[in-house]
Order: sequence, then structure tokens, then C-alpha cells
Amino acid sequence: MQKLLKTKTAWLSLISIISLVKVSFAAESLQMIEKIKNQALSDDYAYHQIEAITTEIGARPLGSAKELNALKWLEQQLTELSVGHLSKQPLKVRNWQRISASAQVISPYKHELVIESLGGSVATPAEGLEAEVIKINNFDHLNSVEADKLKDKIVYISRKLDEHSPAEDYLNMQRIRQKGAIIAANKGAKALIIRSQTTDKSRTAHTGAVRYHSNSPQIPAAAISPADADLLDRLFARNLPVALLINLQNSESRWVDTYNLIATLSADHSQNNPNKVVFIAHIDSWDLGTGALDNAAGIGIGLGIIKQLIQFQDKLKHDIEIVFVTAAQFNQLGIKTYIKHLNDKHIVVATEADLGGESIFRLDTNIDESALKLADKIHTLTTDLAIERGHNASGGATNTQHMLALDIPIFNWVQKTDNYFKYLHSANDTFDKISLESIQQNVATYSIFLFSVANEGLIFSNKVTEHEQPTETTVTQ
Amino acid sequence: MQKLLKTKTAWLSLISIISLVKVSFAAESLQMIEKIKNQALSDDYAYHQIEAITTEIGARPLGSAKELNALKWLEQQLTELSVGHLSKQPLKVRNWQRISASAQVISPYKHELVIESLGGSVATPAEGLEAEVIKINNFDHLNSVEADKLKDKIVYISRKLDEHSPAEDYLNMQRIRQKGAIIAANKGAKALIIRSQTTDKSRTAHTGAVRYHSNSPQIPAAAISPADADLLDRLFARNLPVALLINLQNSESRWVDTYNLIATLSADHSQNNPNKVVFIAHIDSWDLGTGALDNAAGIGIGLGIIKQLIQFQDKLKHDIEIVFVTAAQFNQLGIKTYIKHLNDKHIVVATEADLGGESIFRLDTNIDESALKLADKIHTLTTDLAIERGHNASGGATNTQHMLALDIPIFNWVQKTDNYFKYLHSANDTFDKISLESIQQNVATYSIFLFSVANEGLIFSNKVTEHEQPTETTVTQ
Repeated sequence: MQKLLKTKTAWLSLISIISLVKVSFAAESLQMIEKIKNQALSDDYAYHQIEAITTEIGARPLGSAKELNALKWLEQQLTELSVGHLSKQPLKVRNWQRISASAQVISPYKHELVIESLGGSVATPAEGLEAEVIKINNFDHLNSVEADKLKDKIVYISRKLDEHSPAEDYLNMQRIRQKGAIIAANKGAKALIIRSQTTDKSRTAHTGAVRYHSNSPQIPAAAISPADADLLDRLFARNLPVALLINLQNSESRWVDTYNLIATLSADHSQNNPNKVVFIAHIDSWDLGTGALDNAAGIGIGLGIIKQLIQFQDKLKHDIEIVFVTAAQFNQLGIKTYIKHLNDKHIVVATEADLGGESIFRLDTNIDESALKLADKIHTLTTDLAIERGHNASGGATNTQHMLALDIPIFNWVQKTDNYFKYLHSANDTFDKISLESIQQNVATYSIFLFSVANEGLIFSNKVTEHEQPTETTVTQ
Repeated sequence: MQKLLKTKTAWLSLISIISLVKVSFAAESLQMIEKIKNQALSDDYAYHQIEAITTEIGARPLGSAKELNALKWLEQQLTELSVGHLSKQPLKVRNWQRISASAQVISPYKHELVIESLGGSVATPAEGLEAEVIKINNFDHLNSVEADKLKDKIVYISRKLDEHSPAEDYLNMQRIRQKGAIIAANKGAKALIIRSQTTDKSRTAHTGAVRYHSNSPQIPAAAISPADADLLDRLFARNLPVALLINLQNSESRWVDTYNLIATLSADHSQNNPNKVVFIAHIDSWDLGTGALDNAAGIGIGLGIIKQLIQFQDKLKHDIEIVFVTAAQFNQLGIKTYIKHLNDKHIVVATEADLGGESIFRLDTNIDESALKLADKIHTLTTDLAIERGHNASGGATNTQHMLALDIPIFNWVQKTDNYFKYLHSANDTFDKISLESIQQNVATYSIFLFSVANEGLIFSNKVTEHEQPTETTVTQ
């Protein structure tokens, strides 16, 4: 679950409240940073924690017993790391559950399709739902097609994720998945199926959240595998009517208890220092795989950062908070709860890991312009990790996007996503796609970043910004 | 379904009955060969026939209504190509059918596994089968392990297909899949699961035939996906007892009617010429995908050959038989029936296409040594198609292996198999893995080969061979 790069319009910084004071690091700091880097690059702890959570817990669907198991497991790891300060933020989330999904082409030729419900989808009748299928090319086509063409039909949206720039294209795809059922239902459709949103071409279906509108009918929504979408496309190319029987069984969501888990590396004089730096990773995953890329990787990286930095805790001028939030997959109620309780300390800068198990290749930021030199300086600490300096228009990630709205400065350490956009939200999101070397590079990068800010007591400007228009972002949920 | 390369021991040719007479081609022949090649390389007919059979029929399980649909479809295509002589060879085959398969790890940690029954497997009890799992490393380990260790256990064979030389390693893997259930049952095991036999690492399970012995108990047998095998391996690495609940539901096999379909391009004076050359492709496929690589590709290539050569039918000195056989997946009753009816014409040489949709890169043969120069000469006609000359110890393919036993000369045009050993026998065996260019190269190669032999009226020596020991071959079924 992740939000990437890319704001459609650059924002205008109007006022800098606090300006930057310091852009160089003490020799002692640089020595510690070098030590942190070398240790992180040779430590397999984070990698093995990812192995452990995917092997011993597996999938962690929002609001499930497995999510609670994962939180307990995580608390145990944090205790073993001797984290002195752990806190929980209780909240209620919905616990939608998948039961079964099947689909058959019943004309013009019979085929079994590989299909999975979108997360949150209502069920079909027990006997399934049979209807003619209308092929829709993309989001604009869905919006513009006349309602009478969709009346009582199954709407099939054939749009593919662009395999050459999936991260950038994911924004368009999310819109289809999240809003497709609302628009189709308003035009009288009986169900929605989409091509799985992935760069993979295989026979595996990819889930992801669907949204409903309280004023619209709720229709069943599902994704078919890319190879099955190809098959449907070939059937449509024959200009024969296509009909499907789909059967999606899911349990209705109830509100259940869960919590965010927050580990704090407390600064030496934390009572006198009102500042903290924040690293975020989400604990919930989709149910089909074991949530390795999305987001056991982030959890492992978070644990790895703590292992690296806890030994330098007495050097910190700011607190470092490693925040494990829930509800990234549906509505980010976890980060919203965290934000609601932000009453004690000022967040100097926030970052999030949520793009899988590959290495970081670029630093994007969203900070006041007066802080750019400082960001560039911090970036130089990571250049030998093969990380470029990117732009200052980051939209944040799944959770940090909500902090951007509060003008909290954001560092977005962008990972390569060759695997991520192939396997996200599918049964293939498993541990074998995690690279030890890349996880080590991630832990080194975040550790250097968080330590340098907290050790030097750096302060970024809070921005008061005016957006030309609402920022659009790429959020994978 | 394919048998590849590799005999463990070279055979000794003792007597050559007929010796070779001719190793050069007439200028007119070479012109026709050039024309055939150029036409085949620019014709998308075969490719579109593969698209059509996978789209309009889909999977063609042995003895199913879909297999009969495919045979009818094929007959229609042959009629449209104006093939003058079509014949059918009726036979009875078994029609095993998959109903459902599921598996859960129930200790030490709960996980859902992706599993599929091996073809022909008996069912578990309706409520499933729960037992402790014993990990076995490979075929030799299974053979050597003491029976009391397997008593009442689920045997799990973790052996991976070698990703660097899958074609060569497949022999070892087949032995595990085909004989594993017999050996495990004889040692008292309750069920067998194996790691899917594939170079893929994904969350898709791969089927393939399992065999039973009439004197042994028949135990349920299934394959789990590579990613799930990795998971089991990680559980075993924790040295905790592993237990599974598996539920495999399959229908028992009945004997049903089907047939081989044979298209003959008749030589001009066929009554006076007792010889024919034979191309074989199998019509049946596994049920999980749409049987594109295995073996719609071979069917499309066969049709493409006919389209290329039918225009030169009046030039042929030998008949060319394009033989579409059934039952490649289980026991090759199709080719056995074909062989039983071999009473009219002498087979000069036989070949088979059964390795998917990629290009041919090598010619292996199994012919009398006196014919090697002729084979090399024929090979020179294909060198500009990037085909190397291989060895003379080919074990044939799934069906031609049975002809080798009759000392029928074999040409084995070996395809690249990057896709084949990734996707065979799985839901991922779908049309998107077929390459137009490669199919054109296949059609060109086979057309040149069959035409050059039939047009020149070439005769290969029949061998009378003595095998040092039984030939072992790599057959994918």
C-alpha cells in the first residue's frame, strides 16, 4: 500500500515559518553514520524478520485474528530489541472476508476464469449472477457510455496497467478499481469485473479495495487474471455476445478492534525536546498471498532500523517513532487515528516504507523550499547506496499522504518496483520475492536518514502551502 | 507432452539393412524449398489457428467433450485446407476429471496452500485427510527411507526442477511424479504431495500424470506451488512437526470413445510407393490452462505444414501423414493405436512437435549411421533458421519414443523451452506465451524437412539396434 511520487501541479510555498539553520554534519556524527551504514549492510536481521512474519503468521487481513497475531508477534520482537517505550492506539476497523470466487464464460465458448473479489465487495446471490458482458476500455469510456448500454449487464473494464511506467500509471488504475463499481451501478449494471491491475501476464487475479457510494446500489466487483482478460478480449474480437456466470461469496464487514503499535527511541532529553521524526509501515495485508512485499518488507525494515539505532539512542536530540499502523488497505483509519492523537510532539519529518523488497533508487521530498539544501545534504549521505536525488513534489505514500495535508515535511525514499507491480495484492505476494541485499540497503538508508535528523536535531520548515488544485497521488491500496 | 534428447547410453547399430543412396537436392527442389520457407516465415495462419483452438475450445482433457470438440474443429480446418484424405482411428481412453483441491497447513502455523491433484489421482475422503508430513528430498531418498517413518504420513517430496537445465532434469522429475505414489504407498504413506515440476517460482500448481501399481494401495497425489513448497521448507527448517489437511476431489476414470485424426498429403503415385513420412502432434491437453504450449502449438504447426505443402502435393514421392493423436498425457494409447494399424506403408522418418511455442534451435536424430550424411544435408536446409545440428542419440518425443522402439528413424527438432518448463501443466499454459515469429520458424522448419524427404523420395536405413540398457528418456506428461 503506497503512494508515490507525482503531484499534478507543483504547490506554491507562500510562507516559511521556520528557516533552516544547519547544513553540515559533525565529524563524530559522520563516523556514527558510517558505522550504522556498514552494520546495516551486513546484517540479515530485517530479512529474517520478513521471513518470520510471512512464515509464522502469513496474510494479515485488516481486522482479522491473523492481524492481531502479527501485532503480538511484532510486540515480542520489539521487546526483544529492548525498545523502552511501546504504545498502542486502539481503533475500530472493518473485517471484510473473502469466502470464494468463481467465474465461467458461458457464451460464445465455455471457459473457466481465474477471478477474485475486490476487497470490500458485496456478494452475488448464492447461485451466482449471470448476464451479458459489456466491454469498457477505460475510466473515461465508463464515464461517457450511455446508461442504457450497461443496464443489467456485467461491466468489464479491460484497461491494462502500463508495464513500462506502472508506478505512474497506477493512479489511473486505482480510479478504475475504486470508483468503477459506483459509476457502473449508477448506470444500472449488475456487476463489475476488471482486468487485474498488474504488470504480470499470468493466470493469477489481483485484489485491491473497491468503494461504494452510500447513494448508489452496491454491486459485486471482482478482478480477473491478465491471461483471462486477454481471453475475454479475444472473445470480444469475434463480435459475438459474451455472457458470464460469476459467483462471489464474501462476508459482510463488521467493526472490530485493532490497534496501531508505536515504538519510540526516546531522545536523551526528550522532555525538553518537543520534536520527533517518524517512520511508518503498515501491518495489514491482503489475504491472497502472505503479504511479503505489501508490507512485511516495511515491517522488517522498521525492525531493522530499530536494531541499528537503538545502540545510539543516547545520541538522539529528537525522538524517533517507528509507527506500525493498520488499515492501509481500505481507508487508512490507522494513520487517521495516529494523526488525531498528535498532540504532544512536533513531527520534524515523516517517511514511509511501502513498495516491497527491492532497493531504493531515488529520494523525493515534499518540504519547504528553504529546507531543500538540508535535504540535499542528507541525500549525499546515501549517494554511495546508489540513490539519486529526485524532485520535491512527492505525494507521499499511503499513510504519509495524510500527513502532507497537515504540512508535515515528507521524505519519500522511492524503491524499484519491478516485483511490486507484478505481484501486489495477489497470491504471488510471497517471501521468495524479497531480496536480502535490497532489504539491507533499505535499512541502511532509512537508518542513516532518521539518525542524521535526530542526532543533529535538525528542524525542517513547516510549510503553509496553497495548492493550485487538489494534489493527485498514486496510492496502492 | 514431450520426450527430449538424451539417452543415457548410446546404442550400438549392428546391421544396416538398407543403405543410403542420395545426399544432394535437385535445383528445382531447392527452389521449391526456398519458396516454402519464405511463405512459411511470413504466414500467420498457424499462429491464428493456435489462437482459435485455445479461444474457441480451450483445455482438451483426455476423453472429455472438449477433446471431441477440438477434433471436430480440427476436422473442419483440415477440410477448409482441402485435405483430400482424412482418416480416424477410434480408441478408448480414460476420462479422469478434477473436481476440487485444497490444502491447509494446520501446524505449526496455519496457511492456505495452492494445490492441484496430479492427473489420475484418487480422491481423498470427502472430509479430507489430515496427517503429519514427512519431508523427502528426492527420488533416491524416497526409495531408501525406512517404511516406518512414512507409515500413515503425508509424504512431501521437495525436489526442485533444475532451472538451468530443465529439459535434461525433467527425466528425474517425472520419475518422482509418476512413481512417487507407488513407492510411498508401499511404505504405508496416506498421501503424496510434491513440489510442482516447473522452473517458475510462482503460486501456481502444476499437474501431470501419476501412476499406480495394481498391487499397491492407491493414495491421493497432488502438487503444491513452488512458493508453497518454499513455505513448507521454511516450516521444516524450524524443526517443528508439520501437519496438513488436504482435500482432493476427482472423478474416477471411465473408458470412453475418442480417436486419432490423420491427414494425408498423398504422393502422386502413392499406389506404387509404399513409403510415408510422419509428423505427429497430440490433441489432448491438461485441464488447468487452455493447453496452448502443450500442445495447441503442435496442432497449429501441423495445420501450418499442411497449408504450406498442400500446394506441392503433386511433387511428392512419399505420402506425408500429419497425425493428430490423443492420450499423450496419460499412457499414449493414441500412438499405440496408430502403431498397431501400421500395416500398409513403411515410415521413412517420423517427427513430433510437443515443446511449446518457441523456436527450434537444434536437430537431434536417432537414425542408422549410414543415414547421418543425409540428415546433415537436410539440416543444412535449415541453418539460416538458426538451427544447430545436434546428436544422434535422441530419445524421441512423447509419441515418437514408441516408434523408436520399432526402429523407425526419428528426427527431433528441439525447441527452446524457456516458457515451456515454466508453464507446462498449469493454469498458466495460455495463448499469451505463444510467439508468432517462433511458430512461423517451426512451420518453415518442419515444412522444409517433410517436403525435402517426400519430394526427393529419400529412404533412411531401418536400424536393427541392440541397446546396452533400456533407453531412458525425458517425457513430459
